[in-house]
Amino acid sequence: MSTYTIGPLLHEGKAKRVYRTDRPDLVAVEYKDDATAFNALKKAQLEGKGPLNCRISALVFEWLASRDIPTHYLGLAEGEASRRWMLVRPVEIIPIEVVIRNLAAGSLCQQLPVASGTRLPSPLLDLYYKDDALGDPLLTDARLALLGILDTDLRDRLEQLARQVNAALLELFGRIDLELVDFKIELGLTADQQLVVADEISPDTCRLWDRATDDLQDRILDKDRFRQDLGGVVEAYGQVLKRIQGVCPEPRFYR
Amino acid sequence: MSTYTIGPLLHEGKAKRVYRTDRPDLVAVEYKDDATAFNALKKAQLEGKGPLNCRISALVFEWLASRDIPTHYLGLAEGEASRRWMLVRPVEIIPIEVVIRNLAAGSLCQQLPVASGTRLPSPLLDLYYKDDALGDPLLTDARLALLGILDTDLRDRLEQLARQVNAALLELFGRIDLELVDFKIELGLTADQQLVVADEISPDTCRLWDRATDDLQDRILDKDRFRQDLGGVVEAYGQVLKRIQGVCPEPRFYR
Repeated sequence: MSTYTIGPLLHEGKAKRVYRTDRPDLVAVEYKDDATAFNALKKAQLEGKGPLNCRISALVFEWLASRDIPTHYLGLAEGEASRRWMLVRPVEIIPIEVVIRNLAAGSLCQQLPVASGTRLPSPLLDLYYKDDALGDPLLTDARLALLGILDTDLRDRLEQLARQVNAALLELFGRIDLELVDFKIELGLTADQQLVVADEISPDTCRLWDRATDDLQDRILDKDRFRQDLGGVVEAYGQVLKRIQGVCPEPRFYR
Repeated sequence: MSTYTIGPLLHEGKAKRVYRTDRPDLVAVEYKDDATAFNALKKAQLEGKGPLNCRISALVFEWLASRDIPTHYLGLAEGEASRRWMLVRPVEIIPIEVVIRNLAAGSLCQQLPVASGTRLPSPLLDLYYKDDALGDPLLTDARLALLGILDTDLRDRLEQLARQVNAALLELFGRIDLELVDFKIELGLTADQQLVVADEISPDTCRLWDRATDDLQDRILDKDRFRQDLGGVVEAYGQVLKRIQGVCPEPRFYR
């Protein structure tokens, strides 16, 4: 594929930096080793997390592409020194975090009388306003309308796309004996107004439980290991990578 | 009206005690002087608050009755020693707190980028799950469905009734130069499945701003005086009582 040069920093988030390139159709994403939880009240550096999440996200995006689900992903950066770099399409991020839950876990169990691990009668879709200062508040339909950031048509498309992602991820993780408990995605609009999955999909943004064990701690292969101080975070992410490598298409590379 | 005798305690809440009486169609409510805020993390005794809220609620319920809005209210207990007692119909409380906001204030301004005092384009109706242990969490449609405590028909009736209450209260408080910023109500089902307004409607459950002043603190005539340590809580409630006495029908009494 054609070459590019990294340009100025566009945005730095908690786990990634986003850079302009010398090509208007190409943005570069650097996955950091920073781990954060509880709205960044808890922080750490976990060596190797960045490259792992970069690779896992690439594989998941390849999987979604194989299921005709549009994403911002274009390919990985080539070379050993580029293991934490991904190339993506420029998108305008919609400031809504979409969470889909198949089993109850995490904050849901603090907010509703439902025990962790309970399979929900149908996937629960929650929208949160992406605003760290406000603590990413849960949105009702009426509050979403009040915000005025999402018209009905775009909201319908967003929910439909998120549910397609859930179905595709359930298939993917089901094949490798991982329970997809819940996940968060962000979506964006390309210059031609196509709605695509953006951000990342990794153990930072998915709850994944190993079906091979019943142990309530051992089964956790996601950021909850960090949140709950269980240790072995990078090892768990490595386990996820090892498994999905066998089923996802090989990632494309950018030179 | 016919006499009754107070029976055993049915329920003690943060601001009221509810007693059975010797009549199955009659329940007695005692308004306490206890003030609580922030899910009871802040507590105080405010002498005179109980009788004030009892009287204010009675007047507001009389007003709602005059507007054909059904409530659990039947009348006040007669006698100087009974100034904190109200008689109501027995109802099964629906464990949902309905909040309607006309202006932005309080928690809404911590959760959405909207400044306190902003008039909302239309009244915002929020449903919260009434559960102190869970912190009365905000409910989306999907979470409400998951809880399974309110079918679509009852939910529609509940929202419609709450909006009727808002319209009636806006008329009432508008007449006495009070801005109804927001309020919380609880609803219940009578033995014959009639949906009625229950609990209380008072400066504990309404935000009321005096339109006669622009001072951001002086104008507050509700529980925010307690939440924000502004002092003069009972005096403010007395001011509300003084004003609504002129416009609401006289309360009925039970002997």
